[in-house]
Amino acid sequence: MPVNIPPLLPEQLLPIPGLSLGTAEASIKRPGRKDILVITLAENTRVAGVFTRNRFCAAPVTVARSHLTGSLPIRALVINTGNANAGTGQSGIDHAHATCASLARLIGCQTQQVLPFSTGVIMEPLPVEKIITHLPQALANLAPDNWFAAAQAIMTTDIVPKGVSRQIQINGTTVTITGIAKGSGMIHPNMATMLGYIATDAAVTQPLLDDLVRYATDRSFNCVTVDGDTSTNDALILMATGQAGNTPITVSTDPAFISLQAAITEVAALLAQMIVRDGEGATKFITVQVESGKTREECTKVAYAIAHSPLIKTACFASDPNLGRILAAIGYAGIEDLDVNLVQLYLGNILVAEHGGRAASYREEDGQRIMQAPEITIQVKLNRGNASTTVWTCDLSYDYVKINADYRS
Amino acid sequence: MPVNIPPLLPEQLLPIPGLSLGTAEASIKRPGRKDILVITLAENTRVAGVFTRNRFCAAPVTVARSHLTGSLPIRALVINTGNANAGTGQSGIDHAHATCASLARLIGCQTQQVLPFSTGVIMEPLPVEKIITHLPQALANLAPDNWFAAAQAIMTTDIVPKGVSRQIQINGTTVTITGIAKGSGMIHPNMATMLGYIATDAAVTQPLLDDLVRYATDRSFNCVTVDGDTSTNDALILMATGQAGNTPITVSTDPAFISLQAAITEVAALLAQMIVRDGEGATKFITVQVESGKTREECTKVAYAIAHSPLIKTACFASDPNLGRILAAIGYAGIEDLDVNLVQLYLGNILVAEHGGRAASYREEDGQRIMQAPEITIQVKLNRGNASTTVWTCDLSYDYVKINADYRS
Repeated sequence: MPVNIPPLLPEQLLPIPGLSLGTAEASIKRPGRKDILVITLAENTRVAGVFTRNRFCAAPVTVARSHLTGSLPIRALVINTGNANAGTGQSGIDHAHATCASLARLIGCQTQQVLPFSTGVIMEPLPVEKIITHLPQALANLAPDNWFAAAQAIMTTDIVPKGVSRQIQINGTTVTITGIAKGSGMIHPNMATMLGYIATDAAVTQPLLDDLVRYATDRSFNCVTVDGDTSTNDALILMATGQAGNTPITVSTDPAFISLQAAITEVAALLAQMIVRDGEGATKFITVQVESGKTREECTKVAYAIAHSPLIKTACFASDPNLGRILAAIGYAGIEDLDVNLVQLYLGNILVAEHGGRAASYREEDGQRIMQAPEITIQVKLNRGNASTTVWTCDLSYDYVKINADYRS
Repeated sequence: MPVNIPPLLPEQLLPIPGLSLGTAEASIKRPGRKDILVITLAENTRVAGVFTRNRFCAAPVTVARSHLTGSLPIRALVINTGNANAGTGQSGIDHAHATCASLARLIGCQTQQVLPFSTGVIMEPLPVEKIITHLPQALANLAPDNWFAAAQAIMTTDIVPKGVSRQIQINGTTVTITGIAKGSGMIHPNMATMLGYIATDAAVTQPLLDDLVRYATDRSFNCVTVDGDTSTNDALILMATGQAGNTPITVSTDPAFISLQAAITEVAALLAQMIVRDGEGATKFITVQVESGKTREECTKVAYAIAHSPLIKTACFASDPNLGRILAAIGYAGIEDLDVNLVQLYLGNILVAEHGGRAASYREEDGQRIMQAPEITIQVKLNRGNASTTVWTCDLSYDYVKINADYRS
């Protein structure tokens, strides 16, 4: 079961003026399940996105990236689950184009104004006819208050739908931000397909929106994955309809921009954390904080050495304060000149190791108590600089193996 | 159960003239189990070794490395299981010294002529008194034909003892090579403690022996682990007693050296493969071959991206030919300019993917058949150069989680 995700209620996801969502059941994976989501955008909506860096990126990623960098404004997104259209060669590209073209005809825009997304089984041909014939069904129930159904429609192995809204005041104008996400393959996050769609009614220029999506991603979805180590289909899309009525934000030094940046980053981080909390087989939510390193890069190396270690993850599953496994991961993280005698390790707020060994004050029962909680914080102080980083992960349980051994059957 | 390791018979491990082995039961982990091994070496024996690169290396590694690079010849090795003496700070160093000093007194040599090794639980104080008081027991049963008991004495979570002997002819002289090893934490090999002890009666100079241990390690133990990503205690020791009677080998161009190098490398590779075959929870032995890369380094990146992926490892456990997971791993391995359309993927001898997708000739039942076997070969042709590499790993099963969640309890 997901770790500490409160139940999502439909009314918690606030509509964004200028944006509508519609879903359909196309029986791509199995009958009776929403598996298509269409998002339509009012004129003048600006769209920015970041995509997987995997060299085997999926066909829809190639197409979406191309359309997003084209000269025409984006007017719609189409997302299907059940099939990732990845590892499908040229026919995959053709299928993604055909999907966009079909939706474009139905809503009256150009093919290049539609972004396609797919998630699910890879290396199987996309059932493009099923998708195309069910687009009218999705368009028939388009509505601005349809975010909850949208969050359900993009789920794959997710146990719960994931979404969050925030409102902030910008110069007296209320601005709304709503986001949904999917993803749950989390032991090595690099293999999970994560999709995120965040929208706001704020008015903001395209260059600032491009900055915003990268800034938020670096502090959210990129904290549950390694740079360059992403699945074939990952994408985070940020849309700004501009209908809130705020004075358009045009410079990054504007306090309004800072507020918007903070709020969007919070929404992105909450969504990314929900993905970890719903990690396949997860029973614990683990925060890895690495502090006082020389560079953010070396902090990240240490954080991921810990967050990726199956030995540490199984120890978390077993509520075992196995300090040695954590020290060993710090030791092999790749900092060649690391002085291990300076390193301090904390579980929660308990100092557990320093001077190359167990802390004199450490009592096993304190470590045990912290490891038994559903939320575990592992904090490493390298004591050699001022950089820091935080990474979120989950434990490795029997159910992870079960889920991933059975996935295709 | 271990994958395809034939039962080891005591008589298969041939004695090496000039080398004796003795074991003791010191009740370090539990009573009634051999947990101490002493190896004594005749005068003029040369010793070479490679050790973990983990910055949190264990106390015995620090001491052994120092003694090995000292000016005095090595006369004995002492290995204990049950406790790794890692993450134990200065007292761990003191304990390793005390162990060496005690054995040195008993056999009449200097402390610096003894190499200490430990494996087992980390961050617990070494029960040094138990070890010291049981050294006489080990010395009492010293014998050249004691390799089988020695292989048993160094086991930790290993299910079976691991050892192999080979004999070759060098200019009409029979030369013997015998090796033993321990290790089985194999899903991410960087966390497994692997110890290997290989001995030969060949006469060979110290510089050539140093070359030999590095050459053999690169083609064996380093093929089941990542450069720099090793446990706190890993070590491979190569000993040459020089008592075979061969004309001493002094240059690396000597055909005798080539023969010896090949035989020692074969012994090391067989031992390393046994460690994978006895991997914790292993049900499949997986060989990952990456070919026609631009450099060995990029081949290694791809091979480890595959060999470390828990999604691929669970697919192997489930006998599921999940090609997409393999392609995704190739894609995120970090080759920035990889042209995925050139990549060819084989399962066994079946071409399963090319041109960025499934091969036209591929039938799922062929992939299924290969994945069901206990030995699986995954072959990647990058088709952009002449470099290649091979890595060995095992699958990820329920039992891996069980073993590692329960290890300390």
